[in-house]
Amino acid sequence: MKVEIKESERVDDLERCGYRIIQNPKSFCFGMDAVLLSSFARVNEGEKAIDLGTGNGIIPILLRGKTDGRDFTGLEIQEQSADLAKRSVKLNDLEEDIHIVMGDIVDAAALFGASTFDVVTTNPPYMIGMHGIKNPDDAKAIARHEIKCTFDDIARESSKLLKEKGRFYLVHRPFRLPELFETMKKYHIEPKRMKMVYPYVDKEPNMVLIEGIKGGRARLTVEKPLIVYERQGVYTQEIYDIYGY
Amino acid sequence: MKVEIKESERVDDLERCGYRIIQNPKSFCFGMDAVLLSSFARVNEGEKAIDLGTGNGIIPILLRGKTDGRDFTGLEIQEQSADLAKRSVKLNDLEEDIHIVMGDIVDAAALFGASTFDVVTTNPPYMIGMHGIKNPDDAKAIARHEIKCTFDDIARESSKLLKEKGRFYLVHRPFRLPELFETMKKYHIEPKRMKMVYPYVDKEPNMVLIEGIKGGRARLTVEKPLIVYERQGVYTQEIYDIYGY
Repeated sequence: MKVEIKESERVDDLERCGYRIIQNPKSFCFGMDAVLLSSFARVNEGEKAIDLGTGNGIIPILLRGKTDGRDFTGLEIQEQSADLAKRSVKLNDLEEDIHIVMGDIVDAAALFGASTFDVVTTNPPYMIGMHGIKNPDDAKAIARHEIKCTFDDIARESSKLLKEKGRFYLVHRPFRLPELFETMKKYHIEPKRMKMVYPYVDKEPNMVLIEGIKGGRARLTVEKPLIVYERQGVYTQEIYDIYGY
Repeated sequence: MKVEIKESERVDDLERCGYRIIQNPKSFCFGMDAVLLSSFARVNEGEKAIDLGTGNGIIPILLRGKTDGRDFTGLEIQEQSADLAKRSVKLNDLEEDIHIVMGDIVDAAALFGASTFDVVTTNPPYMIGMHGIKNPDDAKAIARHEIKCTFDDIARESSKLLKEKGRFYLVHRPFRLPELFETMKKYHIEPKRMKMVYPYVDKEPNMVLIEGIKGGRARLTVEKPLIVYERQGVYTQEIYDIYGY
C-alpha cells in the first residue's frame, strides 16, 4: 500500500488493530475527546454510521476498530483534512469500510438523503462564535469555533440523516449542556445517556458525552463519572483501558 | 419555650447551631437531599428566601443555620407537615426569622405577590404522575410523587416569585435533567450551576443540584462531583463537613 506522507505530517499508532493515523501538528491533532467518544458510541453489526466533521478521520477509524460496525462515512468540509483522512483510511486498508466525503454539514441531509443512517457521531467545535479568532480560514479555528456551522445545524442535519430510533453521539463542553439538550429536543433527538468526564475526582468536568435517540422517550441515564487522572501524569485504569495500552 | 411533641413524633439534633427538628417517621423524614440542597444554596444577608413544599421545615431551618439569610418562608400544602414545621420553628426560637405558611405551590405567586423573593429553594416530588400509588392523600406519596403539583408548576411560580436575577435552587433526580433544564428555560430561569451527586465514585449519580438565575445568560458551570461514600458505611470528608459532624 503506497500512501504519501508529507513533510509536515507524522504517523501515530492507535494501539487498536494495528491502525495508524496521519496527523499534521500544524493543523489539528485528535484529542482525548475523540477517543472517549469512540468508546462511548455504539455501532452494531450491519449499521450505517456517519461522523460529522470528521477531521483526519480519527473517529470512523477508531469505531471501525472498537465496534462491530463495518459501514462508516466521514464528512469533512476542509480539503486538507479530508485528504489526510482519505490517506489514513488507505494506510489502514479500510477503503471498503470507511468513506471520506468532502462536504458541508449544513447540507448533509441533502448530500446523503434523509433517514439513511443508524448512527451519527460528532466532535463539533466547542466555542460559540468567532471571539478572539485572527484567521477564520485556519484549520484549528474551524475545528474549535462555530465558524462553518453551529450546533443547531448539526442537530438539525443529524435528525434528518437518522432513521427513526437512530442514535446520535456527541462530545462537548459541559458549559453548553442546557443548550445542547434544548437543541437536541428541538429536532426530536431525546437525550438518553450522559457521562461526565472529570480530569480529577476533585475537579470540574471538562467534557460531557451524550447519546440521544431520534424519537426516544424522555428519560436520561447519567452514567458513573469518568475520571481521567489518578494523579498528575498517571491515568486511571479506565482511561488506560479505553486507549488500549 | 413550650412546644408540643406528639406520641408518634421524635426530635432530631441537626448538629448546626443547636437546632433540632420534629419528625414523624410515619409521614416523612428529611433525607440527604434536603441537607445537600441547603449547603448548595446561597442566601446572603438581607435577602428574602422561600422554600416551596417545605415539609417539616428542614430547609429553612438549615439555611438559617448555614447562611447569612434571616428572612425565610416555608410554603407547605399539607396541614400536618405545616404544623410540624411551625412547631420546629418555635422549638428553635426562630419565629421571627422563619415563617411557615400553609398553601398551594400552584398559587404561590398570587399568595405572596410577584417579584418578592431573592431566592427560591425546592426539594420537589421526584416521581412523575401517580404510578403505583395506593393512597394519593398519603403524606409520603404527596412528598414523592407529582400529585399536588408538577415541576412545571414549581418553575412557573418560582419565576413569578423571584426578582430579576433572583436565584432558584433545586435538588432532583438526574433522569429528569433534560426536562428540568427545558422547563426552567421556558420560565426564563437559566441553569447556571450544577453538581452531580454520586453515591460512590464508580456508581451512577442519584441526585443533581441545580442553581438557576432568572434572566441569567446561558452558561452552565458544572462543579466537581460530590461523592457520598468513601466505602460502605463511611461517608467522604465532604459529606461529614456538610452534616457538621
